[in-house]
Amino acid sequence: MRIVRVQYREHTFYASLAENAVVCLNKALGLAQPIPLEEVIVLPPVMPTKIVCAAVNYRAHGAELGHTVPDEPRIFLKPPSSIIGPGHPILLPPSSTRVDHECELAVVIGKTGRHLDPADVREYVFGYACANDVTARDLQKIDGIFGRAKGFDTFCPIGPWIETQIEEPDALTIRTLVNGQVRQNGTTADMIFKTFELVSFISKIMTLNPGDVILTGTPEGVGPLHAGDEVRIEIEGVGLLINPVLSDTDDGREKPVQ
Amino acid sequence: MRIVRVQYREHTFYASLAENAVVCLNKALGLAQPIPLEEVIVLPPVMPTKIVCAAVNYRAHGAELGHTVPDEPRIFLKPPSSIIGPGHPILLPPSSTRVDHECELAVVIGKTGRHLDPADVREYVFGYACANDVTARDLQKIDGIFGRAKGFDTFCPIGPWIETQIEEPDALTIRTLVNGQVRQNGTTADMIFKTFELVSFISKIMTLNPGDVILTGTPEGVGPLHAGDEVRIEIEGVGLLINPVLSDTDDGREKPVQ
Repeated sequence: MRIVRVQYREHTFYASLAENAVVCLNKALGLAQPIPLEEVIVLPPVMPTKIVCAAVNYRAHGAELGHTVPDEPRIFLKPPSSIIGPGHPILLPPSSTRVDHECELAVVIGKTGRHLDPADVREYVFGYACANDVTARDLQKIDGIFGRAKGFDTFCPIGPWIETQIEEPDALTIRTLVNGQVRQNGTTADMIFKTFELVSFISKIMTLNPGDVILTGTPEGVGPLHAGDEVRIEIEGVGLLINPVLSDTDDGREKPVQ
Repeated sequence: MRIVRVQYREHTFYASLAENAVVCLNKALGLAQPIPLEEVIVLPPVMPTKIVCAAVNYRAHGAELGHTVPDEPRIFLKPPSSIIGPGHPILLPPSSTRVDHECELAVVIGKTGRHLDPADVREYVFGYACANDVTARDLQKIDGIFGRAKGFDTFCPIGPWIETQIEEPDALTIRTLVNGQVRQNGTTADMIFKTFELVSFISKIMTLNPGDVILTGTPEGVGPLHAGDEVRIEIEGVGLLINPVLSDTDDGREKPVQ
């Protein structure tokens, strides 16, 4: 099932997505009839308490950045304020001259978990989504740590929906297209630390809460985005996330709706 | 004014702290009379959407870790799941052999802000609190990035209250005592990037939301914690935060109340 989070008139709610309509999942709102898709605004499918990310989780991407393969996952956080939904623009900050796309399989946590074994992770996963771990590569190199480079507003496009019916997350084609040209073309089978292993590792550090997002790393082929681009993340059986790219103006522009 | 967040019977609310009592600030609860302090559980004073931290913001601490002074702040994030309140135990994870205390002045944001000038930051600050940026030093060195080393549950003690009446955050004595012995003894006057400058820098990266916490870095003298220790963070005019230290057992121990 595809789960979307939408705004419709004065309401914000989760809904299941059918062909060209959504069905509200919040019975209390009394919206029993399907609502045509063009009448709703599709929001980011989740607003997590945290976004935990694997730093280098595909060998070939590690090689292109000059990193060695770690013995254990290396993790960092992106702020929830970086999240945008499908169609919202990625804003290039004036403080960076090199902002890259990174297509990633996002895991959405379904219930509170801590100290999980990999074999138990499946029952804690609500579903999967497409995500883009947008990165200011120049600032990442300057800082060494990733808080700034990966933390700008709009640097975590996610969506357009959460797909709940993925049985096997470790054999999915994952691609980035920029203006229709394939830039990244990998498979989640090439992850160094497999999805459930990664979630297990993180759960031994910190409590995972419902709605929390785990980004599982990006395959090789990361490259720059420019104002005017359209970036498209495709994951087999999961979804298709499209965002335009614009320059930020550093003038206090209004935050995109979350 | 000192603001605490407390649990009292079935309610959780913000309150002002008087001598030995609290006064509920949520008028809707109808708790007009002062409540004796011993009848409430003091919770962490804030549950932020993000905790943004300065990596090296005191020269002498940078020197003790072998870091050079950066031209701009270097920032990282701690997950909200790492927060505990006063009196709750810091749990030493079995995966680390060296967990350090780091006393820090915490800034609590009062209203949504983006692209703030340093001169405008004051009106976006709700208040200040004592915090401990607990760090698994060995894992920090292994990983290079800080997601794991600074992200364990219980690694962000904060409180016991938010002090709203600090006019000048940049000239406060800040100390850590472990079992009564002074381990860190600095002043916020030694910050490389002053409080308002740091908040301004972060606001040019990401939207700051009410309740968000900014940790401003630690002075020299960081050192290890051991099970059985009592760690005490004192900041002049701000407060006094005490937490015991225990070993975690890696057995799925219940999370301390947040």
